Order: sequence, then structure tokens, then C-alpha cells
Amino acid sequence: MTSTDGRQKWLTVAEELAAGLRVDAAERDRLGAEPVAEVGALRRSGLLAVRDWATQQAVTRVVGAADANIGHLLGYHYLQVWRSGLFDNPAFDPGEDLFWAGVSNPLDAALELTPVEGGFTVSGRKTFATGASVADRLVVSATRADTGEKLTFTLDARAEGITYAGDWDNIGQRLTASGGVAFDRVHVPAGQVLGGQDTATPRLSLAALGFQLVLAQLYVALAEGALAEAARYTRTTTRPWFLSGVDKAVDDPYVLGTYGELVADAKAAGLLADHASELLHQASGRGAELTAGERAEAAAAISAAKVVSTRVANQTTSRVFELCGARATAAGYAFDRFWRNARTLTLHDPVSYKAREVGAHFLTGEHAPFTGYS
Amino acid sequence: MTSTDGRQKWLTVAEELAAGLRVDAAERDRLGAEPVAEVGALRRSGLLAVRDWATQQAVTRVVGAADANIGHLLGYHYLQVWRSGLFDNPAFDPGEDLFWAGVSNPLDAALELTPVEGGFTVSGRKTFATGASVADRLVVSATRADTGEKLTFTLDARAEGITYAGDWDNIGQRLTASGGVAFDRVHVPAGQVLGGQDTATPRLSLAALGFQLVLAQLYVALAEGALAEAARYTRTTTRPWFLSGVDKAVDDPYVLGTYGELVADAKAAGLLADHASELLHQASGRGAELTAGERAEAAAAISAAKVVSTRVANQTTSRVFELCGARATAAGYAFDRFWRNARTLTLHDPVSYKAREVGAHFLTGEHAPFTGYS
Amino acid sequence: MTSTDGRQKWLTVAEELAAGLRVDAAERDRLGAEPVAEVGALRRSGLLAVRDWATQQAVTRVVGAADANIGHLLGYHYLQVWRSGLFDNPAFDPGEDLFWAGVSNPLDAALELTPVEGGFTVSGRKTFATGASVADRLVVSATRADTGEKLTFTLDARAEGITYAGDWDNIGQRLTASGGVAFDRVHVPAGQVLGGQDTATPRLSLAALGFQLVLAQLYVALAEGALAEAARYTRTTTRPWFLSGVDKAVDDPYVLGTYGELVADAKAAGLLADHASELLHQASGRGAELTAGERAEAAAAISAAKVVSTRVANQTTSRVFELCGARATAAGYAFDRFWRNARTLTLHDPVSYKAREVGAHFLTGEHAPFTGYS
Amino acid sequence: MTSTDGRQKWLTVAEELAAGLRVDAAERDRLGAEPVAEVGALRRSGLLAVRDWATQQAVTRVVGAADANIGHLLGYHYLQVWRSGLFDNPAFDPGEDLFWAGVSNPLDAALELTPVEGGFTVSGRKTFATGASVADRLVVSATRADTGEKLTFTLDARAEGITYAGDWDNIGQRLTASGGVAFDRVHVPAGQVLGGQDTATPRLSLAALGFQLVLAQLYVALAEGALAEAARYTRTTTRPWFLSGVDKAVDDPYVLGTYGELVADAKAAGLLADHASELLHQASGRGAELTAGERAEAAAAISAAKVVSTRVANQTTSRVFELCGARATAAGYAFDRFWRNARTLTLHDPVSYKAREVGAHFLTGEHAPFTGYS
Repeated sequence: MTSTDGRQKWLTVAEELAAGLRVDAAERDRLGAEPVAEVGALRRSGLLAVRDWATQQAVTRVVGAADANIGHLLGYHYLQVWRSGLFDNPAFDPGEDLFWAGVSNPLDAALELTPVEGGFTVSGRKTFATGASVADRLVVSATRADTGEKLTFTLDARAEGITYAGDWDNIGQRLTASGGVAFDRVHVPAGQVLGGQDTATPRLSLAALGFQLVLAQLYVALAEGALAEAARYTRTTTRPWFLSGVDKAVDDPYVLGTYGELVADAKAAGLLADHASELLHQASGRGAELTAGERAEAAAAISAAKVVSTRVANQTTSRVFELCGARATAAGYAFDRFWRNARTLTLHDPVSYKAREVGAHFLTGEHAPFTGYS
Repeated sequence: MTSTDGRQKWLTVAEELAAGLRVDAAERDRLGAEPVAEVGALRRSGLLAVRDWATQQAVTRVVGAADANIGHLLGYHYLQVWRSGLFDNPAFDPGEDLFWAGVSNPLDAALELTPVEGGFTVSGRKTFATGASVADRLVVSATRADTGEKLTFTLDARAEGITYAGDWDNIGQRLTASGGVAFDRVHVPAGQVLGGQDTATPRLSLAALGFQLVLAQLYVALAEGALAEAARYTRTTTRPWFLSGVDKAVDDPYVLGTYGELVADAKAAGLLADHASELLHQASGRGAELTAGERAEAAAAISAAKVVSTRVANQTTSRVFELCGARATAAGYAFDRFWRNARTLTLHDPVSYKAREVGAHFLTGEHAPFTGYS
Repeated sequence: MTSTDGRQKWLTVAEELAAGLRVDAAERDRLGAEPVAEVGALRRSGLLAVRDWATQQAVTRVVGAADANIGHLLGYHYLQVWRSGLFDNPAFDPGEDLFWAGVSNPLDAALELTPVEGGFTVSGRKTFATGASVADRLVVSATRADTGEKLTFTLDARAEGITYAGDWDNIGQRLTASGGVAFDRVHVPAGQVLGGQDTATPRLSLAALGFQLVLAQLYVALAEGALAEAARYTRTTTRPWFLSGVDKAVDDPYVLGTYGELVADAKAAGLLADHASELLHQASGRGAELTAGERAEAAAAISAAKVVSTRVANQTTSRVFELCGARATAAGYAFDRFWRNARTLTLHDPVSYKAREVGAHFLTGEHAPFTGYS
Repeated sequence: MTSTDGRQKWLTVAEELAAGLRVDAAERDRLGAEPVAEVGALRRSGLLAVRDWATQQAVTRVVGAADANIGHLLGYHYLQVWRSGLFDNPAFDPGEDLFWAGVSNPLDAALELTPVEGGFTVSGRKTFATGASVADRLVVSATRADTGEKLTFTLDARAEGITYAGDWDNIGQRLTASGGVAFDRVHVPAGQVLGGQDTATPRLSLAALGFQLVLAQLYVALAEGALAEAARYTRTTTRPWFLSGVDKAVDDPYVLGTYGELVADAKAAGLLADHASELLHQASGRGAELTAGERAEAAAAISAAKVVSTRVANQTTSRVFELCGARATAAGYAFDRFWRNARTLTLHDPVSYKAREVGAHFLTGEHAPFTGYS
């Protein structure tokens, strides 16, 4: 099977999963339960085991367009597996049907590692650990109390001493299980330590860029999903305006013109995200030879993708209502979930600083600093 | 007491009411109950009895900024009293503390009037009758089955034969009691008939413009309310971004710049709505001498106000999140209510046709047609 | 004659002058000569002697819509007379038909005053002295070499020792005579000194706000002028697009919709500028009692007007081409002059810092600093 | 030499040509002469002989960014060669160093062909024949007076009976020699007839799409060129604003943020144009098997590219002035040429109908009609 065949096969799988997710997306959004069933569906689909980078990005977009919550979980799962691989630690095994999540909000205080016989124990709290409470395995970063070294390691998500706060109750991405996690002297066997977080090395620092990229892909997916859902409604349900002179809403010149603008923008945003994805994939493939300049090129492309897709996601998910009409605000449709998801997810970190990064790179060649967000 | 003193007094009353509404706006939005208590608060405040046009507009904005649902009910109440007055029927008495609502969605089939001893009976169904189910009095339009004449009349909102569907369950303006109403042979005493709906007369046709104007005022109020709420949050809760180089979010250059743009836009939109209000007030005061050309001027100004305030409301209520940061998406704040209210209310009728109206009036002097929406 | 009658009379005068300016605006823009003839027309019209603030603003807009160069000269003339009055120096006499200009670019090094018998001599160079080379009288600011005191005084524009560089050759506002001025020991009689520039006093610091306000009015005028000129062309010359299904361009839905949006925006921007004008007029009228807070309110309103009108001017003057079609780019029409004028004039000082000012005033009540630009 | 090597070689050639064009672009724009020297430079560079589609597109962008006039001539030259090839007429020989242009404004009346011994004569007039007056060879379309058949043929641009009006005098693209052409019984040898214009066949109808695509590429090039030129100025000449708190303009947060947004948008627009280019290339390569549906996909992508790049070109070429400051409006820089070129070129055909096409294709799968513009 060639790579293209493989990609097509997985896209078909993703489309089928997406079709199922669309059926009750509004209802599931309303309930806002932990996404246990949805992660089960991901596991059964086989998508968790996809290892081809471009295919991962493509299926994340397809699933994310149907349900941005589940696209988020899937995209982050791929990232955890990929970033764990950046340590080049042969002991790391992602498994075939394990669902991975991470615990590493850079803005929280660090978790603390205490050396013990055969490894460490880890203690402390982190907020916003997307997917952790429904995961099989976690990728966690913490700081050694004795040496100050920052280490990254894996844990069984059900290990003794881990508790999940279940405190994610936000206006969007309600099914992403993005609550806090507490660690109370959780045992970390030495064999599960992936490596030290050498933040000065371009390659290891790629992890943060991966998260930025997947966010951009999800923003594009939200625009695509909103447009697809709106189009179904406009075709089947929207009434022509009585002053329009046309018999069907799909013939209204303003409806057509606005669809055209939004579709064109979403397409451009998607291509920019894919271009950035390709640059990051190349950077990741350069291994230890990756230079700071190459990293900076990928970082600038990803930030550009975030700038464009942030605007596109927020605008599209709001403006599609104009293409459907007043009755589309009925709560049963929950069309507002696209905007609520976009608005929530695009606040991950402030887009104004991404625009600044792009500008500085263009104007003076400045490299984005290596941080948890760039 | 001069007119200005009177206005100031009522603005103070409105501010106090608004302060109370803000306290639990998020919680009331979540519950989405019939706004019985809120209408009671309006009644007790004395605001229902305000008869000065400019004061009505101003207090609608103040109340609407705190809670667009209640601003909507109040603004429509004033409109029902005003439009009833356009019939110049001396029998009409708005009362001092009665809350008025209307039943007249122009896109529904007409209610049917059957002549009986001493008046008529009215039967049929209408959708989207904002405030009707919590009103004291209704203004209703219906068509005589025998002559085809369209009449407007008042009813006690609790009259026998009237039932309220309670079927308003939408993503925004959740507390406006905008569900359907059914009339089953409801008695309409002859003395409660305000007059015939002569849609060819400029003056009577002003009613539709009044609704368009109040919508524009509410859109402005939503932008103002979102900005005020966001500013409280930015000042007290938003953390500075770690790359910003400033110690407080209120010193962030991008936060300041974006506030500046949104505030300037909201101010311009508000002045345009007030300008349109003044033109409509003048047109209304011209009585039977109102010409089609004068009406068209007012209509164009109101449509211009709707075009600008629609954009401002939707953009502002979405972009304020960028000024608050990710944690402001916590469901408890329900900051999304501003956007949900704006998005719902701005779909009342398609803004693209309002832009078209403004363009045609400017380009060729075309008069907007007399319809339920223009 | 009441004030309203007076205003109407002057508006009529301004409209007549504007009609004349429109006839050969394209040709005059191409030639880019010193506006001697145009200042002569201003003088003959009597408009130079208008002293009513609101009338000044209104006629500046009318003239500026026809030719932003001449509107600029007229608006600045009014400002020089007004700001000279802020010194409350009874010796100041604006004359009836004198044309005033200023020499005071705040970013240049200061001119130097040397005390001599009966007054001073002034020496040095200033750039960008709009209108100076065609003026009758100049308002100049300079610094005493002996005391460091900054004084403002008037000069006959033809006084010995003054030379005009004639070096204004820019893409827009080509007829504003905005070149540099050199002073070589020019005599300043003591009686022509208006007063010291006490920049810490709110009232004297109003001068800078006046310039900001007039710029905002001119931006609005540019949008209004471009729309008026485009409408004439669309009505008379634009061909309907062959796929539009309409027989005349004025019936094209997209043409109408875009006119509507641009007209609505220009109207809102104009009302905001007029509102800011009213606040500045009130502040000016408060005399020595003007507080820093009152000044800050006026400053914020003016900055808001600049933010909105900057965007509106640049967008409108560019987008009107879409309403006219490809043949409207023929050089003979010189429709690009609206954009070139807008683009040049809106760069007077960076609008991003005006947005910042508005944001800071809204968010924390911060007062704009007293500078040459705020 | 592999294809990639070849592309890189030609990109280097294009960059060198572009560097030369940039040196005196402002001066040449001012003079507005026929681009004889520039076509000579194209000929000498060897770029006219490039036959690889993607390389053609890439070098058009590079040259167009430096001078959109010359990029326009080069891009259209490639199109004339390509579209002539669509007739599959083995007699067609593009030559190695011949510069091609076309005469075919679809909105003019058709030229008339009269059969004569050994071929035809052609008579009539066409407007807007970009590059024709400086070309070596022309591609011309005309209608047989006897049969009504529409034929396309080539001519020596200096053939007897052809005269060039030299009447292109517009605000932008001043060096594109886009004036009218008159044919007075010009001999058309039978061997130079490429074929009949069967507008119902998807493949031949691709020609119009090629022109739309190249326009989109040039719009992107204009944005890229304006950004590059602005960046040079900001780095070397722009002064920091005195209230900015930074020492260099390249550190101003607003300057950086705006560059970031404009650069990100231009990048997205460029990728969308390249994506559309790839689809058209595939469609072109399908030969007679090209289906209407495949053509419609390419058409929709190209229209989407035009929608996005039209907005990006007009906005970017105007907004870059904000990144340079007031002194960048000095006529000597002629920075306004980017906007004048963009504004002129983006009016080729109304973008609102392109948005409509994209919307209709997305919403209902509608195929764009086969016209001279779609």
C-alpha cells in the first residue's frame, strides 16, 4: 500500500467517524460529559495508530470539522506520541490503541520530582490538561527538587496518586476533559523517563510548535465544519427573504457572495496550516542537525497560520448564521457551538503576540524564543 | 423640572436597575426562565411610564447594556405605546404601570377577525411575540375575514382564549419570552380597535421603522455592555502575557489598542443610532403631513444604523474575549451571552437588505418600501 | 439672522465654492501648483471670516469633500485663528479676509528667538508648514535662546527674512503648500507675541486637539467626497456586469450593498467627528476653568474620531473603484486622488497610538499627555 | 538537470531581473513609457522560453513583486503560448525569444474575418490589448463574417494594417501597454489559424481561467512587493514614534503586529493561488478527457484565489504606509504605485461575481459558466 493509498484509507475512516460524531454533536455539547465514549470510538477506528505526519494532520481536520472537541483530543494524542519521540529514547512505545494526553501547562508552577529507589515520585498540580482524565497514558513534565533538572516522562493515567479535578466547565470545547490534574507522590519508574527538557536545543523545543500547529489546524477545521453545517441548513431549511426576488435561499446574491468569501478564506487558511505543517515535519526530520534558523522558519510559518486561522475561525463561525437566518438560532441546532469552540480554543495564547512574532521574523529575521508557546 | 433634568433622573433610575440586572445576568441567562421578575422590576422602577422619546431611547440602551433581554422588552414596550398612538385614537390609554407587548410577526399568516356583537373575535397563531407571555396588554394586528381589512387592536394579555406556547428556546435573548401565541375566538371589544392598517400612509408605516431603530439601539447596547464587562475583568483579573514586558494587562499595547478600536466603533454606532432616532422622532411628530420623502430619509438613517451596529455588535461581543484571556471562557462568567444575544438579535431580518436599502437611497434616492421590516 | 440661518448661508456659500473646485480638481491635482488661486477663492467667498465653531467645522467638511487640499487649508486657517485666541491676548486681530497658516511641526528642532530692541528676531527652519507659503499671516512658535521660554507669535507671511522651500512634493494633498519654511533673523515685534506656551495648562494645550479634530473632519470629508464622485460615475457611466442580470449598474445588488456599507460607515464617522467637535468647543469655552479631566474627555473623543475616520477614509477611497468599474481607472478622472489624499493625510501621526489613547482612557481613565499630537 | 534544479535556476534569473527592475521602478512609473526596454530585458533573460508551468507561475510572482507591469507582461506572454497550445495545432511554434501578447477583450465587439485566397483578412478594433504594441507575435480571436465561426490565429505584431492606439493612460499598470489595437484588412495566412473557438468544450474554455489565475498571482505579487519595499524602508528610514518607548521603528509593537498580519495574509493568498495553479495545470494536462466537473473545480479554486488576493492586494498596498510613516508619502518613492497597480488590476472584472461563483460551487455544486471571465 502506497503512502497515498494509506492516507486515503484513513481519510475514509475519519470521514465515517466524523459522520457519526455529527449526528449528536449538539446534544453531546449540551450534556458536556467526559468524552469517554468518544475516545472509545477513536480507539476502535484505528486512527490512534496512524503514524504518518501528513495523514495525522488531515484526519485531525476531518474529525475536528465534525466535532472540534474530538479533533482536539486526537490531534493532541498524535502530538504526545510525536514529541515523546523527539527524545530519541528507544524505550518509548506508543502502543497501538493507547490514547495519550499530556500534563504540562507552561504557565502553572512546575510539578516536583523526588528521587526514590528505581526512579522518582512526582507531586503537585496542573491546570488545563486536555484529555488527561480520559487517557490511557500521560506525558508529564516536572522538575527535580534536588537538581532543578526538568524531566519529561510517561505515566499510566490510572496510576495510584493521580486524581482528576473534573473542573473544566467552559463555554467551548466542553468535551475535551481539559480540567486539572493532581499528583500525590505518584511513582515514576526510571524506565519511563524520556529525557531532560533541554530547552536550548532546537529539536526538543519543537514540541511547543507542534501544539501551536495543531491549534491552527483545529481553527481551520472549525471554519470548515461551520460552513458545511450551514450549507446543509441553507440548502434544506433557509427561506428566501421576501424582498430578494428569488425563490430559494441558495439563489440569493448576498448569501452566495458571503459563502464565497468565507469559503475562500477557509481554503487559504487551510493551505497555510498545511504549509506550516510541512515545514515542521521537515524540521522534525532533521534530527540533531536542525538549526535555529530552520526552526525559526517553521515557527514563523506556524504563527502565520495561527494568525490567519484565528481570524477565519472566529469570523466564519459567527457569520454563517447570516447564511441560515433567524430560525437557525433555535437552541436545538446548537450552531453556536462552532463559535463557542472557536472562541475558546483561539484564546489558548494571545494571537497578538503571534502576529508580532511573524512581523519580527519578516522584518529583521528575529527568531521566536523557545518557550512553551513558541 | 426641565426635560434635561427629567432625562437625567430616569437615566439614574435606569442605571440602578441595570446594576441590579448585572449581578445575576449570567445565572438568569443559564436558567432561561420567563422574565416575570424582571418585568416586575421594570414596573416598580417607573420606567414603563417614561413618555419622552429621547429618554426612552437612552434608558433602553442603559438597561440593554446590562441585560439585552430586558432592554429588548423595555424598548419594545415603548414602541407598542408609541405605535398605538400613531392611530390618533383618543380611546387609547397606555396606563402608568402596564407592560405592553405586540403580536405581529409580519412573516406569519395573518390572524383572522370575525365580526360579532360589540366587536370581533380573533383566532389564529403567531410566532416570535417578544414579551407577550409576560405582558399586561397586547397590541395585535389581524385581518377581517369578511372585508379583508387589516386592523390593529389592544387586548388584555390574560384574556380568555389566549395561550402562550412558551416555545422560545434559542441560543440568545433567552429571557425575552419570544415564543408563539395562539388566539382561540378571543373577544375584541370595538372600543379596543385602534384603527385600520393603512400601509400606504407614511405615518402609520413608521411603526416598522421604530422596531428597526430599537434593534439598532440594542445592538449598540450589546457592544457597550460587553466592553464594560470586559473592562471590569481586564482591570481585575486578566494576567499580563509573559512575553509582553508589562506588569499589568491594562498596560499591554495590544490590549489597549484593541479596546481603543472597539470603543471608538461602539461610540460611532451609538451616535448613528441616536441620529436615526432623532429623524424618526421628527417624522413621527410631523403627523399627517409627513411626506414619503421625509419617511425615506428616516428609513435610510435607521437602516444605516442597523448596518453599522450589526457589525459592531457581532464583532465587539466576540473580540472582547481577546482582551480578557483564556480563563474568561469559564462558563460561570457566561461572557458568551453578549455574543449569543447579539448574534440572535442581529438576525431579526437580513442586514444585507438593509445595506442595499441605504445604497439605493444614496445612489438614486429610492425610497424603502413600506413593509413590516422597512 | 439666527445662528442656524447663518450656518445655512455659509453652507450654501461653501457648496458653491465646492462646486467650482470639483470642476477641475483632477487637473489641479495633476499640476500640483501652489494654491494661490484657491486661497484667493476662499478669500473672495467670505468663508475665512466665519467665526462660529460649528459652522467652521461644517464648511470645512463641505469644501474638503470637493477638494481635500483646500478643505485642509481652510480648516487649518480656522484653527490658527482659534488657537491664537486661546492666549486671551487682546492685541490679536484675525482680520476679515486674511488667510492664516502655522509653522510649528512639533517633531522638528525649535526655532530660536533672540531678544532685540522692541521684540525679537527668529531664526531656524521648520518642515511641513501647511499653507504657509500662500498665507497672509503666520502663527509661529519658537524658543527664547536666553531663557528657554517657548513663545507663540504672529508674523506677516511676507516679512523680510522668511523664505519658503517649496519642497512639498508628495503623493497626496499636493496642493496644500506643505513645504518647509526658513527664518533668517526675522523681526518679531513685541506686540505680535501672543503669549508663552505653558504646556501644563489644559486650555492652551487644546491647540493640538484642534488639529487632530480637523484632520478627522477631513478624513470624513474625503470619504464623503469619494462617495459623491463615485455615485455620479456609477449613475452615468458604469456598465452593468454581463452576468449580473440587471440592465443598469445602479440595480446591481453588490453595487448597492457596498454603497450601503460605505455610506453608513461614513455617516457614523461624521457623527463621531461632530460629537468630538462639540466636546472640544465646550472645553474651549470653559476658559481657565477647564479641568484636566474635561480636556481628557475631549481628547479621547477626538482620538476615537480619528481612529474611525482613518479607517473609513482609507477604505472608502479605495473601495469606491469597485462601484465604478475598470474604466474608472483612466488617469483623466484622477479618482485616485481621494485615496492618495486620504493615505497621505491619515499618516499625519500614527493612528495606532490614537487607538491606544482611547483604550487607556476607557480602561483606566488615563489622560492623554499634553503633546503636539494629543 | 532535474525539474527542481531548473526551477531554481530560473528563479535566480528572475530575482536578478527583479533587482534591476526595482532600481528605477518609481521613475519608470512616473514616465509611463511603452515598456520596450523592459520587454528587451525579458527577452535577454531567457525567461520568455520557460515552458514549465509551475516555474512560469513562480517567476511571474518574482518579477511581478518588483514591477507588476513587467510581471503582467510576462505572465500574459506565458498564457498566450499556453492557450495557443490548447488547440493542439502542430503548426504552432512559440519560438525561443519571441514575446507574445493577445488581442481579445471579451466585452468589445468582435473583429471580423473575411476569407481571401490563402487565408483571411481581419478588420476591426479592440481595446485593452495588454502588451500588444510591444509584442513580437499576437494571438487574436475574430469572427468569420460568412459563417459566424469564431477563430483564433496568430499574427506578426508588425504586420501591415495593424496600428496601436497608444491610448492606455490609467492610474496603475502604466507600463503594460494596454491600449487599443486597430486591424485594417490585415492578412491572416491559413497556416496561422490555430483553430475554432469551441466554447462548449471544457478544455478550450480553460484559456479564460488562465488569465484569471495569472491576475491572482499578480495580486499576490503586489502584496509581496509592497511588503518587501516597506520593510526596507522601515528598517532603514522610519523613525520611532516619540510616544512608543522604543528606540527603533522595528521594535514598535504596532508596527510588528501589523507586519505580522499582512505577511500572514499574503502568504495564505499566495498558497491559494499556487493551489489553484496546480489544479489548472492538472486540468490542462487532462486534454480532451477533461470533464466539466473537473474544470469547475479548477475554476472555483481560481475564483477563490482571486477573492482572497484581491482583498489582500488592495489592503496590503494601502496599509504598508502605516508601517513606514508620513515621510514615505514623498513623491520620489512612488510607494503609491503598488496600490495604484493593485487597484487598477483588481478591477479587471468585478470580484463580487467571483465570490458569488465560489459560493454557488460550494453550496450547490454549480459550475461557473464558460465565458471570457470564468
